[in-house]
Amino acid sequence: MSVAPLEIDSVITELKALLGDRLSTSQAVRDRHGTDEAYYATMAPDAVAFANSTEEVAEIVRICAAHDTPVIAYGTGTSLEGHVHAPRGGISIDLMNMNEVLEVNAEDLDCRVQPGVTRKQLNEYLRDTGLFFPIDPGADASLGGMTATRASGTNAVRYGTMRENVLGLTVVMADGRVIKTARRAKKSSAGYDLTRLFVGSEGTLGIITEITLRLYGIPEAISSAVVAFDDLEGAVNTVILTIQSGIPIARMELLDEVQLDAVNKFSGLDYPVKPTLFLEFHGTDAGVAEQAEMVKALADDLGGSDFQWTTNPEQRSKLWQARHDAAYAAKALRTGCEVWATDVCVPISRLAECILETKQDLEASFLVAPIVGHVGDGNFHIAFVLDMNDENEVREAERINERLVARALSMDGTCTGEHGVGLGKIKYMTDEHGPAISVMRALKTAMDPQNIMNPGKMLPGN
Amino acid sequence: MSVAPLEIDSVITELKALLGDRLSTSQAVRDRHGTDEAYYATMAPDAVAFANSTEEVAEIVRICAAHDTPVIAYGTGTSLEGHVHAPRGGISIDLMNMNEVLEVNAEDLDCRVQPGVTRKQLNEYLRDTGLFFPIDPGADASLGGMTATRASGTNAVRYGTMRENVLGLTVVMADGRVIKTARRAKKSSAGYDLTRLFVGSEGTLGIITEITLRLYGIPEAISSAVVAFDDLEGAVNTVILTIQSGIPIARMELLDEVQLDAVNKFSGLDYPVKPTLFLEFHGTDAGVAEQAEMVKALADDLGGSDFQWTTNPEQRSKLWQARHDAAYAAKALRTGCEVWATDVCVPISRLAECILETKQDLEASFLVAPIVGHVGDGNFHIAFVLDMNDENEVREAERINERLVARALSMDGTCTGEHGVGLGKIKYMTDEHGPAISVMRALKTAMDPQNIMNPGKMLPGN
Repeated sequence: MSVAPLEIDSVITELKALLGDRLSTSQAVRDRHGTDEAYYATMAPDAVAFANSTEEVAEIVRICAAHDTPVIAYGTGTSLEGHVHAPRGGISIDLMNMNEVLEVNAEDLDCRVQPGVTRKQLNEYLRDTGLFFPIDPGADASLGGMTATRASGTNAVRYGTMRENVLGLTVVMADGRVIKTARRAKKSSAGYDLTRLFVGSEGTLGIITEITLRLYGIPEAISSAVVAFDDLEGAVNTVILTIQSGIPIARMELLDEVQLDAVNKFSGLDYPVKPTLFLEFHGTDAGVAEQAEMVKALADDLGGSDFQWTTNPEQRSKLWQARHDAAYAAKALRTGCEVWATDVCVPISRLAECILETKQDLEASFLVAPIVGHVGDGNFHIAFVLDMNDENEVREAERINERLVARALSMDGTCTGEHGVGLGKIKYMTDEHGPAISVMRALKTAMDPQNIMNPGKMLPGN
Repeated sequence: MSVAPLEIDSVITELKALLGDRLSTSQAVRDRHGTDEAYYATMAPDAVAFANSTEEVAEIVRICAAHDTPVIAYGTGTSLEGHVHAPRGGISIDLMNMNEVLEVNAEDLDCRVQPGVTRKQLNEYLRDTGLFFPIDPGADASLGGMTATRASGTNAVRYGTMRENVLGLTVVMADGRVIKTARRAKKSSAGYDLTRLFVGSEGTLGIITEITLRLYGIPEAISSAVVAFDDLEGAVNTVILTIQSGIPIARMELLDEVQLDAVNKFSGLDYPVKPTLFLEFHGTDAGVAEQAEMVKALADDLGGSDFQWTTNPEQRSKLWQARHDAAYAAKALRTGCEVWATDVCVPISRLAECILETKQDLEASFLVAPIVGHVGDGNFHIAFVLDMNDENEVREAERINERLVARALSMDGTCTGEHGVGLGKIKYMTDEHGPAISVMRALKTAMDPQNIMNPGKMLPGN
């Protein structure tokens, strides 16, 4: 499975000549690049190359291609399904030195960035322009990684995912060719949609070295709200009715009572320990008030109590920081434990059924496992809080995860709404896609005939 | 270039056995299927197969593949760049018998249709649900054709194009395999985005036999407005400022004074013969009024006069019918002439410059050629009204079109925002895409190794 020792020696020698100190073979650096926030054991690459430019990435890929050596793109390492592990060794290309915002076209509501720019860095950079980039997967991930995994997060219900918000890419192909996938026009009917092909391709088709992103004007008014429910069903049904009513809500996050308890403890809050929705509204002053009133009316009918809303930036920020810290809060529920996060997404008409059945599984289990989700999209997560050394716990999480995925697929849903496939969800790909998997394989072979781009990921048998 | 006579004879014999009367070799039927609304001479297929089901399409494709025979999908024949012509003969598959709405999931705001359902038919079907499908390319095109050409139209500025509104597809591949590209969850990170790969692929990768579409609630309030400007620049700058202000306008259509004059005559209206914007706002009663006031203020500052808005459905309907009849109105400017429509799309910051330079070309030319466009997206059209028998006129239109495309490309725009490539824009593909064209070619070869799917279209050398 791994690269032949003589080949990897040649690669390392050639990369040393190209990069000098920016090629590292130290065990610590390799180990750091051989793992993400998934539950898999580290699988270190043979070396890590710190690239400074598209041309350097292309040259690194050419050297690796000449020696049949795997190439794995690396950003912040915050992926959740084993995306950056190196099961067959090879070279990890760390792209975090490529962290410049290259241009902001405020008039066109777009910008072009290098892949190592993180989402917070971009929004910080945009601060004085009145614009922002909404996609927000929780972690302060790199925009390259977010593109490669088709990330989404809390704002997706209104602004879409990376699928809708990446306008064009520069990509280094498996033979070192450099392509641009699109021009800067807002729409085009000129040829195959290469942009969307690379969004979500997890580094298996090419390495993204520049990204053109859509930006939005910061709304005139933003308000946030919290509402607790007597039961999970009321919370989920409020979500469903809100979406079906066409209310343009910006964020609609569910935390079950286990997660809410964890968040209270971790972030020093005192919300009632009940299934709870965190909401956000974007618009004009009048529009935001109108939206909040509409959702409040729906929630009132479904057992929602104490609907509190605020436009105070500090309170809003505290609320959303608490939401973003949900995984850390879950982890803090059990000292010495890790979080294994999984996610599925189903049509919203099946969401209540899917969450309630999953909750039954969790309540019948001995595991600690909060549910949290971007429920406006039909997307939710389980965060298993596990002692990874306890085989029993890991097996139980696997069992519940299998049932979760099977349930989502049976409801015409997907095995992952936003975390991606990586190593973790390969085994579900054939069930999910049926004969289409053979088309994906043909695409992969056409674009990476040597199978050097992040091998062992996404496609069964890849 | 064409299929060997013996092969085509076998194909026709086998298809006759499969389809009986639904396989036609009559010259009239072949001719009708060998042309669209583009200016190319008819290129008739060898026969036309009227398919009733996905399985039949698969069987037709299998028969054609066994004899290296081209297969061309056909809907309403309203494409504009020579998408359905048969330059190498082969079999045209007419999909208009497959015209059922298969399911409407009102709760999930989606539906599944066969490819021969037209957009008006779908909206008629949805009438009692409170939902609608917004994409509106003017012609009452089939949804299969709209998907295959990545159509957009007047509502795209708010609702996106077919790219954003197709959720999943059933596709017959070049070897007769049938795949589904996606499940019904609103988002997914599970594998390559096959849906987007087929949207806009113009029948060159496979034949679309079912489409899952996103639906929207009919807005509580809709208002339309018309505003005339002293000059084109004022009109275009009003568009640009509206978009940059983030006003969620639903339609924003420009008609230059030549087009406005044509529309007045054709539709019996009496608007001032000036560059004019047709606008539409969707939202709540309060929201619609707020949006209209905001745009009015922008227009007032830029020489817009007599801003008239209405929520009266009859007046609105008359306005938009006039807009949709723009091409017929243009055609009526010169009896016995045809319209050759071309379109480009540029970043909105370059739109004024691009339209004004193009207008100079037209004013210096002897041709009659209105400008009209979905300018909220940076997308506009020239409708050359030509005597197709006059070589001089055709050459002049070609010259202006070449300059138009070069201008758009020099502004980081695209050679077609919504009409597609077909036969007409193949020659610009290499200029537009550079090295990426080789990736498109690799995709095509991987998915259609015999090059039987709509050959001669989209890719140079295809």
